[in-house]
Amino acid sequence: MSRTPRKYDEHLDKTPANFVPLTPVQFLERAAHAYPDKIAVIHGQRRYTWRETYARARRLASALTKRGIGKGSTVAVMASNTPELYEAHFGVPMTGAVLNALNVRLSADDIAFILEHGEAEILFTDREFSTTVRKALEKLGTPIPVIDIDDPEAGGVGERLGEMDYESFLAEGDPAFAWTPPADEWDAITLNYTSGTTGNPKGVVYHYRGAYLNALGNVAAWGLNHEIVYLWTLPMFHCNGWCFPWTLAALAGTNVCCRKVSADAIFGAIVDHGVTHFCGAPIVLGFVINASDAERRPFDQTVNVMTAAAPPPAAVLARMAAEGFKVTHAYGLTEVYGPATICAWHSEWDALDMEEQARLKARQGVRYPVQEGMMVAHPETLEPVPWDGETMGEVFYRGNITMRGYLKNPAATEKALAGGWFHTGDLGVMHPDGYIQLKDRSKDIIISGGENISSIEVEGVLYRHPDVVACGVVARPDDTWGETPVAVVELRDGATVTEAELIAFCRENLTHYKCPRDVIFDALPKTSTGKIQKFLLREHVRRLIAAGEA
Amino acid sequence: MSRTPRKYDEHLDKTPANFVPLTPVQFLERAAHAYPDKIAVIHGQRRYTWRETYARARRLASALTKRGIGKGSTVAVMASNTPELYEAHFGVPMTGAVLNALNVRLSADDIAFILEHGEAEILFTDREFSTTVRKALEKLGTPIPVIDIDDPEAGGVGERLGEMDYESFLAEGDPAFAWTPPADEWDAITLNYTSGTTGNPKGVVYHYRGAYLNALGNVAAWGLNHEIVYLWTLPMFHCNGWCFPWTLAALAGTNVCCRKVSADAIFGAIVDHGVTHFCGAPIVLGFVINASDAERRPFDQTVNVMTAAAPPPAAVLARMAAEGFKVTHAYGLTEVYGPATICAWHSEWDALDMEEQARLKARQGVRYPVQEGMMVAHPETLEPVPWDGETMGEVFYRGNITMRGYLKNPAATEKALAGGWFHTGDLGVMHPDGYIQLKDRSKDIIISGGENISSIEVEGVLYRHPDVVACGVVARPDDTWGETPVAVVELRDGATVTEAELIAFCRENLTHYKCPRDVIFDALPKTSTGKIQKFLLREHVRRLIAAGEA
Repeated sequence: MSRTPRKYDEHLDKTPANFVPLTPVQFLERAAHAYPDKIAVIHGQRRYTWRETYARARRLASALTKRGIGKGSTVAVMASNTPELYEAHFGVPMTGAVLNALNVRLSADDIAFILEHGEAEILFTDREFSTTVRKALEKLGTPIPVIDIDDPEAGGVGERLGEMDYESFLAEGDPAFAWTPPADEWDAITLNYTSGTTGNPKGVVYHYRGAYLNALGNVAAWGLNHEIVYLWTLPMFHCNGWCFPWTLAALAGTNVCCRKVSADAIFGAIVDHGVTHFCGAPIVLGFVINASDAERRPFDQTVNVMTAAAPPPAAVLARMAAEGFKVTHAYGLTEVYGPATICAWHSEWDALDMEEQARLKARQGVRYPVQEGMMVAHPETLEPVPWDGETMGEVFYRGNITMRGYLKNPAATEKALAGGWFHTGDLGVMHPDGYIQLKDRSKDIIISGGENISSIEVEGVLYRHPDVVACGVVARPDDTWGETPVAVVELRDGATVTEAELIAFCRENLTHYKCPRDVIFDALPKTSTGKIQKFLLREHVRRLIAAGEA
Repeated sequence: MSRTPRKYDEHLDKTPANFVPLTPVQFLERAAHAYPDKIAVIHGQRRYTWRETYARARRLASALTKRGIGKGSTVAVMASNTPELYEAHFGVPMTGAVLNALNVRLSADDIAFILEHGEAEILFTDREFSTTVRKALEKLGTPIPVIDIDDPEAGGVGERLGEMDYESFLAEGDPAFAWTPPADEWDAITLNYTSGTTGNPKGVVYHYRGAYLNALGNVAAWGLNHEIVYLWTLPMFHCNGWCFPWTLAALAGTNVCCRKVSADAIFGAIVDHGVTHFCGAPIVLGFVINASDAERRPFDQTVNVMTAAAPPPAAVLARMAAEGFKVTHAYGLTEVYGPATICAWHSEWDALDMEEQARLKARQGVRYPVQEGMMVAHPETLEPVPWDGETMGEVFYRGNITMRGYLKNPAATEKALAGGWFHTGDLGVMHPDGYIQLKDRSKDIIISGGENISSIEVEGVLYRHPDVVACGVVARPDDTWGETPVAVVELRDGATVTEAELIAFCRENLTHYKCPRDVIFDALPKTSTGKIQKFLLREHVRRLIAAGEA
C-alpha cells in the first residue's frame, strides 16, 4: 500500500462551497426564510414579522451604503430597547460597518468622547435622549449626520435633532439589498464602550466570529429553542444585549421590546405576549419581587431569568421560584461578549433546600460552551489557584468569545490579553467542584443598576475639589441598584465643605448615576507608601454601615 | 477630529487569548469539568461518568500517541454503538489523527478497500465483526496493528483478531494526557466513506470547524438542552452519528448505547433510562410502530425522534404521536455532516389534521442554522428554480457544514463542489414557503435501512454474470427497510438463469444488504444512444408493483 503522509493536506482546500466566514447576520436571513410570517419583534402597538425585520434591516443597510457607510465606518445608535436598535444589529454589519450602541444613561461628555473616539460617521438617536445628545453633538469637532428615532411609545418627549427620522431613512433603502458576509470573520462587528478600570471609556471591539458563536453559546448554555419569547429587560447597548439579538434570530424566536423596565412592563409582557425568558441585573429581579399586588398578574408558563452582576440571594430565589420564575446565574464582562460563565444547574440540586440551592447558585459557575478556557489564577504568574473554595485569584478567560481588543489602545489591549489570557480584574475562588465564585469585584468597579462605575473616575472628580486631600470610592450594597458608590474623603485642615456640596460638585462633573450617594469624612487606610488600600477601605465602610454610622 | 480609517485593522490581532481553533473535543473537557459525576454513557451494565469518559478518551489518545499515531494518521474503528466508538470521537482527534468509523455491514472487500484507501494505521474492531474483518485484513498489502473491542454485551460472539483488547490498550495510556486543539480548525477530524454515486466508496473528509458547528447546529435546530438522554439507534459510523457524539458532550447530556436496534431495546431504554431523543432512518420508526404488545412499555415523557432518508407517512406520524413520540423530519448527506436540512415546525401547524401535518412534514424543509446556504437549482446553470413546488431541480448546499472534499480524489471533489456549491445529486422542488421537498433521490442511490446503496455498483456485479446483457437497479418502497433494490434485467438469447440464481450470484460478490431482493426480466427503457433511462425504469417498476406483477 502506498503511503501518502500529506493526504489530508492536499486537494482539500477551502472553497466557497465549504467555507463561509461566520456572521450572525445569516441567522436573520434564515429566520426570514423559515418563519417569514412569525412575529419577530413586538413593541407597543407595532409588530414586525421576520420577513419584515429582514427587509427593514436590509433597507437600513442599503440606505447607509448609499451614504458611503461601509467597512471601517462606525455607526452609533443612542436608543432604548426598540425595534430600531434590534434592526441595527443586523443592518449595520450588512454594510461591513461597525455598530456602536451607546449607553443611554451616559453624560453628554461621555457620549461626545465616545463619538469622537469611535469616529462615528452617523448617529441614530431616540428623541427621548435629545437633551444629552444635543449637548454631546455641540462638543464634536466635526458635525456628523443625525437621524432621529421617533418612537410612538416614547410619549412624544424630547426634540428632533436630525435631518430626518428613521422611517424616512429606511424608505431610502432597498429591501432586497444584497449584503455579503464579511471578508474575514475576524472583522469588527460591534464596538462597545466600557468604563473599565480607568476613567476614560475603552472601546471593546467584537468580531463576527465571537458574535456568531456566542449567539449559539446562549442557546446551548441556557437550553433555548424556537419557542422562546424574549423580553428585552437587559439593555441592547450592554454588550449587545449579551448577544441575544443574534440568538433570537438563530432560533427565530420572538423579541418583546421594552423602553422602560418596570414591574408593570414585565408582568404585562409575560401575560400578554407569553414571555418565556428575560435577562438582567439584580435590579430587574427586584422589580418582580417588589411588585405591588396591582402590578402583579398571574401566568401559567415558567419564565426563565438569567441574571448577572451580583448573586441572587436565597430569599429572592425562593420568592421568584414560588412565583413561576426560574433564575439562572451568569457572569461575564463586556470584553467576553456578556455572559461567558454560567452556574450550570445540576438536576439533583433541585432536591436541596432553598438556602442550599441559593448557596450553590451564588457561584458564578463554569465557562460557556463556546469559551474555551476559564481559570482563577495568580494575577501575575497566571498559576491556577487550588480548587479549595478559599484561595483568591483573578478570573481569566481565553477563547473565541473574547474581544479583539480595545480600539486605538494597543497598550490597554496588550495588558488585558497578556500571557494568552484575558485578565478580568475580578477576584474569586475556585470551588472543589470546578465552579468559580467571585469574592470581590475588580478593585475599581462598582456595579450600579447593571452599569459599571469606575471608582477611579469618581475619585478623579473629587480630587478636583479644592477641599479634598484624599479620597477613595467604594461600593455599598443597595437593595435597588445592587451597589451604589460611597466616597470616603479626607479634607484639608479647616475645610468646611459639606456632604451635600461634594455630591453636588460631582453631579456637575459626572454622569448622574456615577455620583456618590454618600460621602463619609474619615481617615483612609493607606500603605506605607501612601497608596490607599481599597480592600481595607471597603471593610471599613462595611463596618460603618453595620454600625449604622453610614 | 483625526480620522483613522484603518482603526479596526490595527492593533487588534489574534492572540491565544481571543482565538482558539474550533474543536468539539473541548466540549468533552467542559462536560467533565461541569458535570464530572453525571452519567455520560450507559451501555448494558456499564456506566461511565463524564469524568470517566474524558479520562478514557485521554487514555486512548495517549496510548495512540505512544504508537506514533498523530497528525496525518488514520485510525479505523469497526464497532457498533458502544462506549469505545463514542470515546474514539474524542480520543482520536486529541492525537491530531483522523477517525475513520467503518460501516459494520460492509463486505470484507469494501472494508479492505477502505482500510487501504484511507491508509489506516491501526484498527479497533469489535469481536462480533471478526469474520468480515479477518477476511479484510488478509487482503491488505501491509498488515496493521489490530485492537479488539471485547464488549460483554455482544454475548461472546466472534473471535479475537488483535494483539490485545481495548481495555488493555487504554491501560497503556495516561488519563491526564495533555491534548491540544488542532493547529488549524480546517484540519481533518474524521473520514467517512460513502458509496456515493459510483461503485468505489469515496472518503468524505470532515474538518474540525464543521464538526464543532454542527454539534451546536443540532442543539439550535432541534432545541436541545442538557437534560437530553439520547439513545443511539443511529449508527455512530454513519456521518459520525450526525455529529451527535459531539452534541451530547456540548450539552453534557447522557448517551444510551445500543448494539442492536429493536423494539425491545427502544422501549426498554425509554423506560429504564428516561430516553428523550433518538434518531434514525424510517426503519427505526418501524420498530416502534410494529412493536408487539409484549415489547411495548408505557412511559410518561415525550420522546423526540429525528428521522431522515424518507418522509414519514401520515399513518406512522399519527401512530407515533398517539404513543408519545414527536417526529422531526430532516435531510442530509454524508458530505454535509448528516442533517443539514430540517422540517422546522411551525406551532400553528399543530392545529391541522394529521394528514395535513404529514403533508407538511413530508417536506425536508429549510437549512440548518449552521449551514449558510441551500437551494434547488438547475444542475448545470445553478439557476434557482421558481418556488412553485413543481419545478424540479438539484439540491445544492454551501456553508460551514460541508466536507473539505473526497480523500485522494481531486476530480470528484472538484466536481462535487463546482461553482461554489455542493452538488447533492438529489432532485427536488422548492415550495412557495421556502421548504424543499425531494422528489427523487439521486438517480443512483437506493436507501435501505438508512444505508446508501449505489445502484451502479450492484449493476456492475450483475453485468459480470455471463447471461446478463443489460440491467438497471432501482429502489422499490419497502415497509421495513424504506427501500430495497430491485433489478430489471435483459438476458442474452437462450439464457436460462433464474431470479434466485442471479440473487445468489450477487450475494457472492456484494455486501448482503446491497443485493437485489427482486429480479424482473424485462426490456429496459433506453435513450437513442442506448443509455438506460432510470426515471422511466422506476416508473415502469412502480407500475409493475402496483399491478402486482413484481
